This record gives sequence, C-alpha cells and structure tokens, in this order.
Amino acid sequence: MPVPPNVPAKPAVPQAPDHDRTTEPNASHPSPADQPGVISRPVVKTQSDTLYRPTVHFSPVTGFMNDPNGLVFDGMQYHLYYQYDPFAPYAGRVHWGHATSSDLLNWQDQPIAIAETKDGEAYTGCAVIDEKNATGLFGTGESRIVAIYTRASPEKQSQFLAISDDHGRTFTDYVHNPVLDIGSNSFRDPQVQFHKPTNQWVMVVAKSRLHQIAFFASVDLIHWVHLSDFGPSGLFGVDYECPNLIEIPVEGGGSRWVLFVSVNPGGPTGGSITQYFVGKFDGSWFIPDDTVIGLTDFAKDAYALQVYNNMPHGEAVSVAWLGNWQYCQELPTQSWRGVMTVPRTMTLRRDFAGWLRLAQQPRGIETLREVAIPFTVHRLEAGASVQIVIPVGTALDLSMNVTVDERAPDLPPGDKGRTGRFVIVLGNEDGETLSIGFDAFSGQMWLDRNNLRGFAQPFFTGEFSTVLNPDDRHFDIRMIFDASTLEIFANGGLSVGTALVFPAAPLDFLRLETSGAGATVESLSLCPLRKVTNRETAL
Amino acid sequence: MPVPPNVPAKPAVPQAPDHDRTTEPNASHPSPADQPGVISRPVVKTQSDTLYRPTVHFSPVTGFMNDPNGLVFDGMQYHLYYQYDPFAPYAGRVHWGHATSSDLLNWQDQPIAIAETKDGEAYTGCAVIDEKNATGLFGTGESRIVAIYTRASPEKQSQFLAISDDHGRTFTDYVHNPVLDIGSNSFRDPQVQFHKPTNQWVMVVAKSRLHQIAFFASVDLIHWVHLSDFGPSGLFGVDYECPNLIEIPVEGGGSRWVLFVSVNPGGPTGGSITQYFVGKFDGSWFIPDDTVIGLTDFAKDAYALQVYNNMPHGEAVSVAWLGNWQYCQELPTQSWRGVMTVPRTMTLRRDFAGWLRLAQQPRGIETLREVAIPFTVHRLEAGASVQIVIPVGTALDLSMNVTVDERAPDLPPGDKGRTGRFVIVLGNEDGETLSIGFDAFSGQMWLDRNNLRGFAQPFFTGEFSTVLNPDDRHFDIRMIFDASTLEIFANGGLSVGTALVFPAAPLDFLRLETSGAGATVESLSLCPLRKVTNRETAL
Repeated sequence: MPVPPNVPAKPAVPQAPDHDRTTEPNASHPSPADQPGVISRPVVKTQSDTLYRPTVHFSPVTGFMNDPNGLVFDGMQYHLYYQYDPFAPYAGRVHWGHATSSDLLNWQDQPIAIAETKDGEAYTGCAVIDEKNATGLFGTGESRIVAIYTRASPEKQSQFLAISDDHGRTFTDYVHNPVLDIGSNSFRDPQVQFHKPTNQWVMVVAKSRLHQIAFFASVDLIHWVHLSDFGPSGLFGVDYECPNLIEIPVEGGGSRWVLFVSVNPGGPTGGSITQYFVGKFDGSWFIPDDTVIGLTDFAKDAYALQVYNNMPHGEAVSVAWLGNWQYCQELPTQSWRGVMTVPRTMTLRRDFAGWLRLAQQPRGIETLREVAIPFTVHRLEAGASVQIVIPVGTALDLSMNVTVDERAPDLPPGDKGRTGRFVIVLGNEDGETLSIGFDAFSGQMWLDRNNLRGFAQPFFTGEFSTVLNPDDRHFDIRMIFDASTLEIFANGGLSVGTALVFPAAPLDFLRLETSGAGATVESLSLCPLRKVTNRETAL
Repeated sequence: MPVPPNVPAKPAVPQAPDHDRTTEPNASHPSPADQPGVISRPVVKTQSDTLYRPTVHFSPVTGFMNDPNGLVFDGMQYHLYYQYDPFAPYAGRVHWGHATSSDLLNWQDQPIAIAETKDGEAYTGCAVIDEKNATGLFGTGESRIVAIYTRASPEKQSQFLAISDDHGRTFTDYVHNPVLDIGSNSFRDPQVQFHKPTNQWVMVVAKSRLHQIAFFASVDLIHWVHLSDFGPSGLFGVDYECPNLIEIPVEGGGSRWVLFVSVNPGGPTGGSITQYFVGKFDGSWFIPDDTVIGLTDFAKDAYALQVYNNMPHGEAVSVAWLGNWQYCQELPTQSWRGVMTVPRTMTLRRDFAGWLRLAQQPRGIETLREVAIPFTVHRLEAGASVQIVIPVGTALDLSMNVTVDERAPDLPPGDKGRTGRFVIVLGNEDGETLSIGFDAFSGQMWLDRNNLRGFAQPFFTGEFSTVLNPDDRHFDIRMIFDASTLEIFANGGLSVGTALVFPAAPLDFLRLETSGAGATVESLSLCPLRKVTNRETAL
C-alpha cells in the first residue's frame, strides 16, 4: 500500500554530531541551524572525556544519553535508538539518537531518528517490524519499521507512531498522532510486541505516578484498546517507567513471562532501580506467579532496561542505561554523558531456594577477546596476595572460579573464626582501589568503588553487596571493566552488579588477596578486549 | 487453676551479668558455673566499649545482643526480652536476656529469663498476658505471662511454651514442649496475639527457607491449628524471619493490618532488612491490599522489628535491633555488642502518591530533653554555613524544618542550575564528618557515615538515600544521635534511616551548610538528652 498522501514530508532533524569536531579543544557545540532556540554553548572537552570513555560500551559522541529505545533486530542489523540531548551534556530536549550494528558490539552512528518537535520531546519507546503492513502506512518496499514512542510536553504525555521505510534511518510521524492519549502528563514509555497466540499487537505502557502498568491491544498499531492494568506492585517510588514485557526461557525447559518496571527515584540503593516480576501473560493480563519482586542489579547503575524485539530463536537480550538519575548530570565528563550496558542474554533459573530468578550474561563479548594476559594462580594461602600489571585504557574481561577453604575446626567462634574472604582488587600506585570481594562465611559478595577519587557526589554510593548461596564457599564471577564502567556477573549471572567507576588515574594493577582462609582458584582467565568504539579513548 | 504437678522445677539459669564487674579492666568474663561447656574468656574492655555505648538506647552489659523478644506491657511495666549470648560478644548460645521499664526508656536489668538447654538455644519469640489462664498452667496469682519461642538445635526448630507467675522474671518450660513442631530446622520466631473478633490466639511464624509466613490458631496457647500461609512475597533472600502482625491506625481514621517480615541476607542495601505488607486480617488469612512492599528503613541497621503486645489504647509501638548481620560480630566494641532502637510509635499515612505507608516516630524521647542548646538560624544564603560546639558523650535530639529556595529563573540547565542542597554535618577537628543532606531539586535525602574512621569492614556501607516528596523543596527531619547510633525520622516519619556510626574521636560540632541555593530554617531545636542507661558511657 502506498504511503497515504496525508503523511507529511519527513521533518528535518538534526544530524548526529560529527565526532571529529569534538576532538579539537573547545570545538563549537553542535547546534543544528534548523533547531529553533538552540543555545550554542562551547564543548569543553576535558581529559576526563577521554579517560572515562569506554572502548566496548556504546556512548554518545557528544551530548547526553539515557534510556535505550526501540531495540529491534530488523533481520539484518540491530538498532539501538536512545534518549538523547544532542545539545548539552544534560537531560532535556530529548531526541532519539540512533546507532546500528551487526553484532550488538560494533556500532555505527546514524543520523538522529526522531527529533523534538513543537509537540514535545521524543521520549522513550519501542520499534517493531511491521512485516505485513498492519499499519497500512507502508508502500511496496520491504523495509518497514514502526516506532511507537511518547511525545512529552509538560502538559501531556501521549503515544505517537512514526514509520521508517529506509531501514530505520529516518522516521515520519503518523499524521493523526497521537495514537494513544488518556489526557495524562504521566503516561509514557510504550513497548509493543506481536502476541502470536492472540494474533494482536500488545503494548505495555506506564501510568507513571499511578504506579501502574497498562496493557493495550491493537491489530493495526494505530487503534488501541485497553486490556488491563498491573499494579501498583513492588517498591514504593515516585515514578514507574519503561515497562518491558518478554517471554524468557527457563533453564531446563519451558518459559515464563517477565515484566520489567523501572522505578525512579525510590530504589533502596538510592535513586534509579529496575524491578521485575515473573509470571504468565495470556494476551490480556499479566498474572505474576507470586508477589515476589526481583531487582535486576545489586548496584545502582542499570536503569530503564529494554529488551530486543524480533530476536531470532526467541533469544531474550537486554540493554540498560548504565547510569542513575541521582548523579548522571554531574558526572566528570564534559562533552558527553551516558553509557549503555553491554548486551545481555537473559534466562530464568531456580536459585538455591527454588525461586525463579533472572540470570544475565554478557552477550558476545568473548568475540572481542584478545590474547589472554598470562596469569596463573592455583592456590592462595590465608593472608597471601598476588599482583600483576594490567594494560591501561583497554577493557578487561575477567572470569574466575574460586573455592575458599573450609573453616578450620579449632578456631574460636566470632569474627576471627568466621572469616574467609577472597578479594579482587583493581588499583594504582596512587592508592586508588576498586575491589570486589567474597565472604565465604556468609556467602555474600561486595563491590566497593569508594576508594576511587575521580568523582564524588552525595548520592554516588560507594559500596554494594549481594548474597550468592548460603553455606557455599565457592563463587564464580565474570567481570567486564571498561574505563568508567564495571559489570559483574556472579553466581552464573544470578547476581549482577553494574557500576560507574571513576578512578582519578588509570588502574594499572590487578591483585588477588585472601584473608582468614586460603583459597583454591579453579579457573582464571583475564583477557583484554578489542576496542570497538570509534570514539577517542585513553588507548 | 494450680500449676500441674508435672511442671518441672524452674531450671537454674545464669543470672544477668553484673555490670559492675566489667568496669574493671580484664575482669573475668561471666561464666555461670551451672552452664556446661562454657569457655571462660577474659572480657577485654576497651576505650571503644565506653565511647560507643549509647546513653538513651538499651544495650547489654556484656555479651552479644540481637533481636528484641517478648515485647509486652503487663499492665504495670514494659518488658524487653532479647536474644542474648551472655558468654561472648558473638552470636551463639542464645538465651533470653531481660530488662523492664515503666516508660520504655529507663531500663532495669533483670536475670536471664530463658536459658539455653539441652534441647537447644532459646531463639526469638513473644510474650502474652494469659489473663484468663487459657493455658490452665497458672495458679491463683495474677501475674500470668506466657512466652512462646523457638527452641533451636541444628536439627530442629520448634515452638516452646514457658510460663512466668513472677511478673516475667523467671519462666518455667511447659513439660510437654514443643507445642508446635512441623519437623523442620527452618521454622521459627513465633509472634502470638489474641484476636478478639474470632476469640482465639493467633500465631504468625516463619518457615524461613520456604520464605513463607505461617498462621496458626489456638484457644489455649498449647494446641495449635494451621490456618494459612502467606508468601513467598517481597524480596528475594536467604531466610525470612521474625514475622510480626499488628493492627496499625491510619492517620485520619481507620486502621489496617501490617505484616512485618525480616529478610537476611538479601536486603538490597546489603544483608539484613525488614519489609512490610499492608492489608487486612480476618483471623485466618492475611490479605495484602496490593503487591506493594515497603521497607521500614532506608539505611541498613534496623532488623528483626518487633511490636509491643497488650499496649493500652491499641498504640502500635515497635523496637528493632539496631544492627546488621553483615558486620554485627566485628563491631569495634569488645565486651558488649548490640543495641536496640528507641521505641517507635507507628502509624499509617498516605504519601504524595496515595500509597499507605508506615510512619515511625521516636516515642517519649522528648521526656529526656534537657535545656535546649542555644542555636538560632533563620536564613542561610547559598554557600553559607553556621557551626556550633556540641557536648560530647551526650545524646542529642535535633528537629528541623527547612525550605530551600526556588531555583532562580535565569540559571542554565544541568548540574549548576539544578542544585540546592542543605546539609547537616556532625564533625570533629580530625576531619571526621557524619552528614545528612537534602537535595531540593530531586526531593531526596542522603545519609553519609563514610567519613568516620572508627570502623571499616567490607559490608559496612557508607552512604544511603531516600526520596521524600517530588517537586517539594521543603523537608522536615528529626534525628537522635547517641554515641554509635543515629536514627533519622524525615518527612513526618515516612522516611526513617537507622545507622550504626563509629567516629574514631567524638564528634564535637554541628554545622549547617547550603550549596546552590539559600534556605529558610522555619524551626530548629537541638536538645541534649538525659542519660538513662546505668552503663559506663563517655560522659
């Protein structure tokens, strides 16, 4: 079907800033001439902008990035749209930035896909493949991507539809937008998917201040019928945002539906947090299996988790914003702010208590591994340590399996008799340390970024912890350290910690330490990762 | 009814240690001769034992204290029983310690009430007034207190009953104990109350590893019938413990039932946490109003919350253990460990979003106020500060109402334009600070104990935060600072933060600071509190 004549010409949108421009000190801040009211401010580029720029994580060339949007595989490439202020390293004037990839790791910048307009900012939303032209808005071409997103003004948040017939590069707003409007200024972040059993499109969208997730259905992506509401459920908080619903395989067989809901502020660890519910979805109602809530992270820098649409083989893959609203606008970079997590494969697994919990693993990062750093450790006696130099400016991928010795039978009760800790320290000669530790007595793990001196702010919490398995002195861990980011996947991905980290000087050694008991290192692998970003980084 | 002849003679129990003994350095650790297998270890008394000893909070003379138990008002006095190892400053060999009070603040030590026996340790439980001799175990005397508690061995946790006819001073175990046994080693912490509408005693008790709260009923406190199970519900965790069910008044009228469940480890802030559910209770089932969970605290040192039984006028009063299992056995005191929170009056109140939430206020502390410290502040311009000397070794009660100025209209977006912070700092000349701050832009508050140097441990998290009200630049706060304890009641008690604090040297000044915006101080009261403990303290 040809494009209806009432679809307006594609709006002029600002192009993605040319990152070369910002490699010169005090280069002009990009301010597209066709954007009214843009205050041109110089880009103050600092050493921090380079030092803290990740090499295997996506970050914007300049400006401010938050939520991932419109995550979709179009059959050939993966799209990463993102909440983006191209004009300043602060939140505001939100556009949809855009990058594409064939592997979710190597990203090519694309022009801004959806701009701020007189109707408001282009808030979070989704993208779907309208293969059968359900909208009736596409012509004969085979590239049919539909974006459904929130157009936000101070008075109104409503859901807009836009189409792209050029492989997601540019979008044209539907002329009869909004497609869904309930007269609220707190109604946002639609995620849409095709639900085969009921042969309809299903939207989940947040009634943010009501702390409810609303479900709608449509056959054409344009006309929406209210199905149900879920919640309030989970943590107290100010706003519920970015609902995402996905069917996730259960390890060992079967699958369950998982509803992710981001809460901000109100996270127990402070500010932003992503909670999830496990249950079933019948096309109309999400019915949780129980009233248990999960948190996707034990640290506090993984927010607005979104899942990929249209993945082959039903693989469940997510990307989250690696940040927290408590401090994202004060981070020590100047020309750019915002990072995405690495893509993560999600499964469900029963934990020691039989609870079905989310397990996350980094996806495809092993393809970036370079020659392993020679580092062989089999045994560390109590109180021992071993240290090696690590390359600066390169992302590292560390995997370990460790068992801490049993408590000696003749030890007294109390603190001295109950210890048995294994610590992984990244540090430098200035005395900065970033440590991840395992306490074998309690089966708990900690993450401590407190002894890094590159950033301080009242809400930039230093320490986090999680419980792995009770009565188990073994732990497995995988961690990706990349400039200002640390992602920890412990206990087979059941305990994930995502944290921004800001050493004042590069961390150039890795040390393993024990206290209170010896430990056997069953496996250890430390690999530099090949840089995939085209941004200027420390290396 | 006379005491049945088959009730055994009261067992010999160790007496509460005489605290005078411990005022001498290296006094012998009390080791009652009638306790088999007690290892006599010297009490190493350190300066920390005095420096960190609270003056208005209950703490044990020597040994290790955790959960409050058997909280009951017997018509004349309040009882505080508590989980207690009299032999060492570590958890283990659990007895029920005991203290009594006429006001919940001035406590008199009493002999240990329930001892460890060959059947196991005396774990957490409750006490009720058996006014009508429902058990049939009392004689003609009018003092009839029944304790129902968990007797715990490595193989078995079952519920025991014991009676006291001497005003709760000594207890005699029922001869046919246990009164409730499901063959589990993970079944503990019964709380019992008389439910008038159904004319029966109701018990809530944790199936800890199943993450369920079981409900039982009885007419005689001896024979129990299973009613229902609640959960799994709320946070993932290793053990669910210390369930407490109570009807709490809603501000403005009416009441709801609240079920408190302690989780350890598994708290999002690390280790121990207390969650609660609001709903109704019909005598058989607890039906939550929704699937929202609340947390009693935004910091991490308020666990095992228990409520007072038999309170006049249905007042809802709680006491929690001011500690966390992640580090309670490594605290820098040597002869004693463990503190209780101040008693707190609980109500339910609708927050900005209409959610019914727990509000907590310290109970009766104002009766301990001495002459206020002269400190008058009406206005602080942006960037200003004011500082006064505070007395050392005395507990302080600070109340404030503050409004931070509106953001100036000509400020740029981003960090500089969005700030407006008001900070309360307790500090000393050594550079140690304990700070509580309010960020007016985001309506959030923080607590930072990270810059105190008296204690460090991987899980002793430094910073916490909470959200008060969005879009509100006003905040009210009340805080009780007492040696090694800080309790914050903000937003009318909706946000409560309870934290152990260990300055290496006494904090001797209080400073108020602003940044980014000025502030108007609508009210300010700073009062020393009269010492009520008979322990040796810094003053």
